[in-house]
Amino acid sequence: MVVKNMEEWDAFLFPYQQAVSELKIKLRGIKKEFERNRQTAPIEFVTGRVKPVSSIKEKMVRRYISEDRLAQDMEDIAGLRIICPFVDDIYKVVDILRKRGDLNILEERDYVHNAKNSGYRSYHIVFEYGIDLYNGEKSILAEIQIRTLAMNFWATVEHSLGYKHKGEFPDDLKKRLQIAATKTFKLDEDMLKIKDELEYINSSDSNIKDDE
Amino acid sequence: MVVKNMEEWDAFLFPYQQAVSELKIKLRGIKKEFERNRQTAPIEFVTGRVKPVSSIKEKMVRRYISEDRLAQDMEDIAGLRIICPFVDDIYKVVDILRKRGDLNILEERDYVHNAKNSGYRSYHIVFEYGIDLYNGEKSILAEIQIRTLAMNFWATVEHSLGYKHKGEFPDDLKKRLQIAATKTFKLDEDMLKIKDELEYINSSDSNIKDDE
Amino acid sequence: MVVKNMEEWDAFLFPYQQAVSELKIKLRGIKKEFERNRQTAPIEFVTGRVKPVSSIKEKMVRRYISEDRLAQDMEDIAGLRIICPFVDDIYKVVDILRKRGDLNILEERDYVHNAKNSGYRSYHIVFEYGIDLYNGEKSILAEIQIRTLAMNFWATVEHSLGYKHKGEFPDDLKKRLQIAATKTFKLDEDMLKIKDELEYINSSDSNIKDDE
Amino acid sequence: MVVKNMEEWDAFLFPYQQAVSELKIKLRGIKKEFERNRQTAPIEFVTGRVKPVSSIKEKMVRRYISEDRLAQDMEDIAGLRIICPFVDDIYKVVDILRKRGDLNILEERDYVHNAKNSGYRSYHIVFEYGIDLYNGEKSILAEIQIRTLAMNFWATVEHSLGYKHKGEFPDDLKKRLQIAATKTFKLDEDMLKIKDELEYINSSDSNIKDDE
Repeated sequence: MVVKNMEEWDAFLFPYQQAVSELKIKLRGIKKEFERNRQTAPIEFVTGRVKPVSSIKEKMVRRYISEDRLAQDMEDIAGLRIICPFVDDIYKVVDILRKRGDLNILEERDYVHNAKNSGYRSYHIVFEYGIDLYNGEKSILAEIQIRTLAMNFWATVEHSLGYKHKGEFPDDLKKRLQIAATKTFKLDEDMLKIKDELEYINSSDSNIKDDE
Repeated sequence: MVVKNMEEWDAFLFPYQQAVSELKIKLRGIKKEFERNRQTAPIEFVTGRVKPVSSIKEKMVRRYISEDRLAQDMEDIAGLRIICPFVDDIYKVVDILRKRGDLNILEERDYVHNAKNSGYRSYHIVFEYGIDLYNGEKSILAEIQIRTLAMNFWATVEHSLGYKHKGEFPDDLKKRLQIAATKTFKLDEDMLKIKDELEYINSSDSNIKDDE
Repeated sequence: MVVKNMEEWDAFLFPYQQAVSELKIKLRGIKKEFERNRQTAPIEFVTGRVKPVSSIKEKMVRRYISEDRLAQDMEDIAGLRIICPFVDDIYKVVDILRKRGDLNILEERDYVHNAKNSGYRSYHIVFEYGIDLYNGEKSILAEIQIRTLAMNFWATVEHSLGYKHKGEFPDDLKKRLQIAATKTFKLDEDMLKIKDELEYINSSDSNIKDDE
Repeated sequence: MVVKNMEEWDAFLFPYQQAVSELKIKLRGIKKEFERNRQTAPIEFVTGRVKPVSSIKEKMVRRYISEDRLAQDMEDIAGLRIICPFVDDIYKVVDILRKRGDLNILEERDYVHNAKNSGYRSYHIVFEYGIDLYNGEKSILAEIQIRTLAMNFWATVEHSLGYKHKGEFPDDLKKRLQIAATKTFKLDEDMLKIKDELEYINSSDSNIKDDE
């Protein structure tokens, strides 16, 4: 069994750090391109992080992943997050990501319309990403989570509560968090409906004007 | 009457741009300091922007502000935003800001517990901020908006809808947006209640442990 | 003949801006990787810029390039610069760049050992770089200039003098700038010689220790 | 005697890190302001760093500084560097820094015209800088080094050689580095003379034109 010291963790994580830095610039570029073209961007903001060593170790235990299988079996060591205004923007972003030549998508999981038990919603994409090191190319696994501002509110707060509590929530609180998640998604759907109606009104307006 | 050309707008806005850059670094430093001390940060993220010239002009018309009164009468040309996980974090952040020596707070408006008509909630702080230019010091007005992730969801989406629509929303939609705002704030309160209960459970646990 | 308005220039330059942002992160990653591995980095710092529209226009006139040939005929619209401590580091960097999968090198020009008439020294690499836009991939031309700190001193100062003067330097000054360039390169060679001697001394020291 | 563990070093260094981040933004603002006003900036670039713990410890030994005297006696834990094109720009920058309200200058050392024994040249400013922490204000010591591109070439290369060698250079090499430093400064003086002549030519030209 391998047991990495701090130095070796740093070396192991370097390509992931480089990948996260590059991907943040690239994904933020999508938002800039929409703004550049005076179009409404389906992206509100982009964040990224390399999983801290303590979280990697904790997940290795929880998921029975050995150190020598880390690169193949832990998909979210390099993690990106794209936050969208509306639910339909999530799928616009997924379409844009599928067209990119620099991401080799391995798996997609739609937790937007199939929420996790906890109530969690997001769209996950796991992909291979190639980076150039000074001795040659290397491919790593990474994950992008795409979600609305509302989903991000729920997921961030739930994570923060879990961090405070450690371990399972009491059943009562678990239930209340699920209910909050359902209400949150309901808000997302309401907002999308309002947007669609506004777009319909606007397009009718211009039709009427065109008729005159 | 003054009418600035593009060159003059650039010159006028330079101190605001510099202030926003400095304040982003400073406010993000608060978050870092909490993390550094392994404490839960009351700040999720910080953003900042200088108001685009087109928005300044539009607001000048709407609020009857003349160009030569801009520096005194338009308080949000330099705008910062602090996003918090929980409602009570907003007031922790306000307390921290009140202690700072580099912000001279002129006005506070609590739209958290006194929502605007539209449903909008946030805590606003208007302040003077001094920057050093190469010819000497200069003081400008700036505004920080402090809000939860949930309030930020509502405000961002509402702003995006308004941007699409231009002009007043139809009464029906206005009503539905207000209802969404109320539900959003209800979610914030639910989450805060869960946090408080968890903290109570944790503190009881440790009391019991201490008794053993 | 095409004549771009400001809006069209912005659209034309967007991919170049994105490329420069990505390449700055990538090239700075090389320096970080060396430091990460506790090795002396052959890179001191990296800069990048998109050529300002006024400079593009001025070069179009000087080189007889028409607007519709810009993307193919002007190679330095996206420009990166790598600054090295020692002359031999330039060639180490060139070797690392040649191995990268994300740069398709089209041309190399060694102005390090074949200075330009003016006295200018640097190593230039022209390459194709692919970026992913939201509608698909696109390939652009870009240039990396690799030079020592000393060469960068001379080139920056000479450029700054030219900027002040506009047009050709008087013959006498041209001559003095050439002499300064030669002296600058002599300093680079002196420093490299000192480094080589120090490395020889250090390796002899360790040989002696090994013998004991 | 205090002996800090890694955790305590992190806590001790936090205000220095924050100060360096703020000052980098502020000093780069000076360059931006000149460019904004279409004037030649006396600043080429700005860098900053917090001294690594290993270097702090090494300097504590060399200078007989105890851990509890660090904040008062080690002035370059927070270090900024301003690189100028020409020698006279150094003094323009010094004048600008003297006018700032956010730096309380304690000491200035002109190693530009009084080189150190090694040959090193730069202008050093030691100052107090106030930062706002979440519990109140705090003042720290920091240092800005101002030098030309040529001086920066010599200092960087000399530092890199020292890093490779550890310990004193052999006398012969020490001598050769001093000679290189003298030649480097001579180049700086030559370049400044050329700039002055060009400015004289340009001003005469415009006089002649004015006479016509």
